[in-house]
Amino acid sequence: MSTTAIPGYRYGDPALPPAPIGADGLRDLRAACLLSDDDLAALSEAAPIIEPQIEEILDTWYGFVGSHPFLLASFSTAEGPHQGYLAAVRARFGQWIRDTLRAGYDDRWLAYQREIGRRHASGKGEADGITGTPEVVPYRYLAALIVPITVTMRPFLAKGARDAEHLERMHQAWFKAVVLSVALWSEPYVREGWW
Amino acid sequence: MSTTAIPGYRYGDPALPPAPIGADGLRDLRAACLLSDDDLAALSEAAPIIEPQIEEILDTWYGFVGSHPFLLASFSTAEGPHQGYLAAVRARFGQWIRDTLRAGYDDRWLAYQREIGRRHASGKGEADGITGTPEVVPYRYLAALIVPITVTMRPFLAKGARDAEHLERMHQAWFKAVVLSVALWSEPYVREGWW
Repeated sequence: MSTTAIPGYRYGDPALPPAPIGADGLRDLRAACLLSDDDLAALSEAAPIIEPQIEEILDTWYGFVGSHPFLLASFSTAEGPHQGYLAAVRARFGQWIRDTLRAGYDDRWLAYQREIGRRHASGKGEADGITGTPEVVPYRYLAALIVPITVTMRPFLAKGARDAEHLERMHQAWFKAVVLSVALWSEPYVREGWW
Repeated sequence: MSTTAIPGYRYGDPALPPAPIGADGLRDLRAACLLSDDDLAALSEAAPIIEPQIEEILDTWYGFVGSHPFLLASFSTAEGPHQGYLAAVRARFGQWIRDTLRAGYDDRWLAYQREIGRRHASGKGEADGITGTPEVVPYRYLAALIVPITVTMRPFLAKGARDAEHLERMHQAWFKAVVLSVALWSEPYVREGWW
């Protein structure tokens, strides 16, 4: 599958500034959120189960955002929800699921997580040439969305899990990976030196 | 149980500045992290199960922090871990468990969550008259700790759960309440207008 076709997707772009932490910092952050190598293996097992269901998962998440005006506001101009913007973000959101499951958490991945955080914190819409939407996704919602992004994944994992234990292992790994992502995305939001 | 005996505990103190969100903002934030009234009921059911086990839970959490130098650093001076500081925080941490399970999420609770966040972000140690420890708990660890604070609670809940469904219901509610807490604690860390 070609991913270069996704506008604004910059995983691996050498022009991105480096992340504020490198391999050692990532090791500590992974330890803090209990994301072990076994969890990375579980994510890899989840990848072929989830990938064919990504559009359905995105439907679920977009349904959730669309039903809460205070979340939809981030995608809206004075004229209402911006469909082109919603679609552009959707393609990258799907790719984020793929990348998270592939679990190649290297320096290039770290740099792109920082870029994802930056786009939520400021210059939002820039990557898609969108104007008129709010400048910032309020951080408190980014943190809160850990819950729906975690719990809604379970039935999709269940469709391919071998048994209850396998499901639990994949779901726990997903939970940890989502928390890791949000911890990394928070960096551009946080005051200098406090991250 | 008297809680006024806990030094630095200020839930209900009218001198605290108000939180940046009120009842409407909390309603939205609870919706974003799926924390329903049923979840609050599940937390209330969890309270009598957990309260007699709080010291054991804190032993688990302190063991986790103590085994990771990058976490223990927040409690350490140049001379090493500050036992008095660790003990002072521990009493409030136990009370935070009680308050979270009692789920009386009103304006006074919001104001105290903001104060908890503020103490992590700056002026750390102030409430206990401690000097020489780092000024800030790095925010990325606060976010990451959502995972251990969530998953370590499960076996303690299991001791009093009626059945697997009851355990799941209480554990999910706890997960959501932890995410809500961290979302609120993030406010003093985040740049002006981006929270």
